[in-house]
Amino acid sequence: MQEKITIEQTLSKLIEEKKYPTIKDILVTMNPMDIASVLQNTDSADMTKLFRLLPKETAAECFVEMEPDYQEELISCFSDKELTEVINELYVDDAADLVEEMPANVVKRILSNTKEGFRKEINEILKYPENSAGSIMTTEYVSLRPDMTIKEALERIKKTAIDKETIYTCYVTEKRMLLGVVTVKDLIIAKDDEEKIKNIMETNVICATTLTDREETSQMLRKYGFLALPIVDGDNRMVGIVTFDDAMDVIIDEVSEDIGIISGMSTSEKSYLHTSAFELFLHRIPWLLLLMVSATFTGLIISSFEDALTKVAVLTAFIPMLMDTGGNSGSQASVTIIRALSLGEIKFSDLPRVIFKEFSASILCAAAISVACFAKIMLIDHLLLGNDSINVIVALCVCASMALTVIVAKFIGCALPMIAKKLKFDPAVMASPFITTIVDAISLLVYFAFANAILF
Amino acid sequence: MQEKITIEQTLSKLIEEKKYPTIKDILVTMNPMDIASVLQNTDSADMTKLFRLLPKETAAECFVEMEPDYQEELISCFSDKELTEVINELYVDDAADLVEEMPANVVKRILSNTKEGFRKEINEILKYPENSAGSIMTTEYVSLRPDMTIKEALERIKKTAIDKETIYTCYVTEKRMLLGVVTVKDLIIAKDDEEKIKNIMETNVICATTLTDREETSQMLRKYGFLALPIVDGDNRMVGIVTFDDAMDVIIDEVSEDIGIISGMSTSEKSYLHTSAFELFLHRIPWLLLLMVSATFTGLIISSFEDALTKVAVLTAFIPMLMDTGGNSGSQASVTIIRALSLGEIKFSDLPRVIFKEFSASILCAAAISVACFAKIMLIDHLLLGNDSINVIVALCVCASMALTVIVAKFIGCALPMIAKKLKFDPAVMASPFITTIVDAISLLVYFAFANAILF
Repeated sequence: MQEKITIEQTLSKLIEEKKYPTIKDILVTMNPMDIASVLQNTDSADMTKLFRLLPKETAAECFVEMEPDYQEELISCFSDKELTEVINELYVDDAADLVEEMPANVVKRILSNTKEGFRKEINEILKYPENSAGSIMTTEYVSLRPDMTIKEALERIKKTAIDKETIYTCYVTEKRMLLGVVTVKDLIIAKDDEEKIKNIMETNVICATTLTDREETSQMLRKYGFLALPIVDGDNRMVGIVTFDDAMDVIIDEVSEDIGIISGMSTSEKSYLHTSAFELFLHRIPWLLLLMVSATFTGLIISSFEDALTKVAVLTAFIPMLMDTGGNSGSQASVTIIRALSLGEIKFSDLPRVIFKEFSASILCAAAISVACFAKIMLIDHLLLGNDSINVIVALCVCASMALTVIVAKFIGCALPMIAKKLKFDPAVMASPFITTIVDAISLLVYFAFANAILF
Repeated sequence: MQEKITIEQTLSKLIEEKKYPTIKDILVTMNPMDIASVLQNTDSADMTKLFRLLPKETAAECFVEMEPDYQEELISCFSDKELTEVINELYVDDAADLVEEMPANVVKRILSNTKEGFRKEINEILKYPENSAGSIMTTEYVSLRPDMTIKEALERIKKTAIDKETIYTCYVTEKRMLLGVVTVKDLIIAKDDEEKIKNIMETNVICATTLTDREETSQMLRKYGFLALPIVDGDNRMVGIVTFDDAMDVIIDEVSEDIGIISGMSTSEKSYLHTSAFELFLHRIPWLLLLMVSATFTGLIISSFEDALTKVAVLTAFIPMLMDTGGNSGSQASVTIIRALSLGEIKFSDLPRVIFKEFSASILCAAAISVACFAKIMLIDHLLLGNDSINVIVALCVCASMALTVIVAKFIGCALPMIAKKLKFDPAVMASPFITTIVDAISLLVYFAFANAILF
């Protein structure tokens, strides 16, 4: 079977043969996103050569899509002139992201090779708190005056469009106050192009402030299906916009972070294959250690009931089942609540409704699981596998513990994330690993309490 | 403390007093999305009354945003004329979604009150497989001819824009074949409006087919940051577009589904507060039962080592720690891989690289955790808590099991989801609950094997 020849191999061969016009022809057929991924897979000398063959605008678009490590490498190969060219082609929010991710010496070089006006705009964005709308906005948007006619507005858009990340939603401002929005669609379909903007603009504007949480901002944008959301400062003056693609990235990042925390690890912004094994280790070991230490409690509980376990040895066999069921019940509830919280479906004031709903669901689950468990123990463990030390009393003791554990686990699972949110912690940290530990301890205590009461 | 008066209470009072003009004034200041949420929180009689007060276009936009239960209720109150009005205002993809979600008798009423051309378009979309790009696309897009001038193109957009979900990306077709794309931005910034479309269009078009998986389609759209992605049929003829807001919904739904499966439950498309306790129970009980039954294996393993446990009772105390650490290690690896797979970062052919990376990370984790565990057992359990039955031999036995469990768990955690993907199963079903069971069994077997070898 013949191996497929990758585009990277073809390009590397063409570089060797110095067939630069051919390479150029290949690159211009490609999307900047795809060029970025090809560049990252070629070796570092070729990467710079290929990058230099790109048209100026494509080069900037492609640069933005690369991972920080590769951006840094490219910058180190750039002359000051090249650096200036690339940076000045970037949108200001992308430039700000770059400055945030590069090490100090590179940042210094970047800023000293940036035009003064642009440098100011970058610094403007960098001063907002990390998780705020201000930090993900761009200051490049189309602003119109209320007294412009539609014709004048279209002229203005035509003149300024080239530098703007999105032109399709325009903002009508006066003395920097946001008065309304008008879309390019509105402008195009308008019957009379002498009509004033103020007569067709939407005045009921939905906006966020620079300090609004960036996830909240992104969810707002998603909820209303906007292409961009205007951002105002504390005095209601328009300072920028957040565009849908950046909002989408924020939402996906936050979800990935939630999934990570739920599974007991921190996540990286790098893609999997670009994350080293050592980084994976660093992301994972803290939770593993925490869980191990917190298992001291479950260990203690078991130790203190050693006598009971030695007398009725079969009790030990059901510990894993009890703990797994409890942990799973708890994480079902907690993950449901964490998702509902982050999608904005529930608020802290819904706590009583949530608890009631989870309690009802947990009663149903507990009933179903304990009946099934009783049947399983008596049919499989007792009859089929012929374990005589398992009798009705043991089965009842296990099932009762199971039912109570499920109910308690669901209660803890729904209440903890909501309380965490109220106390301004990330609700996700209250998810699986943490709840597992608490539920493990409770399920064992319940189990031994029942065992002591029924069996001895 | 005074209770806040909600907008719902205000509106309900105004309805009582029959102050319809005032209500109208309030409603027009609101976004359709917000009106939908208000309607769903008012009682059913008021809901219909409020809905009837909305302007036709707003009514349709608001209707789309409501949950299926409420849509059904509204439809049941509509006269045939009202129903026709609302349906004909919908975009065709939204109408198709509605038809899919309503019960048969309602669907019949909807279709018999729809204009024939529109009904045909709805049926066209409904015939595509549930998870395909065809099922989420809309057939309403702006198409241009290659020989049009920019001026003619803008005229055409002006005439047809009102019915189109998005106008900002236009598709250049000839005999329904997709030749290129051109954005409204390109048209607006063009210097000469007598220039032909074919000279300014982008001919390197990225598109999906009607049968492409809808998640893959949405990820493509997100990757390239497009507003819409063109969809072609098997003969490369353009049939529709998928817009960014629908793509975003698909991505979020799939992620929620993944999170659900990872946490051992199925998820609902309804929001949390609209899901009944019984539905929650149905979503959760299957995994709970499955886990309980599969715990039979762990139970069996423990039973068969009952003698060892009775002789060295302290061994039991470490079972929860071992199982939790193993389960957590496995789900860390599996969730990382599941995310990387669904974001398209890795393919099956990367399996060797993935295994090597996870193996390296697991060696580091295993080394760190077993050293920490040894220290913890000797310092906390032995010295601090003064448990004399815990000695160096027991600690070594626990730590060795822990190290091996972590390595095995990470291996299973990374390999199973990739194999599942290769076999065309959803990799997420290979996540936590399933892996937990396998890792539980393995960790116990390793533990008892070490105990038998070292202690007896």
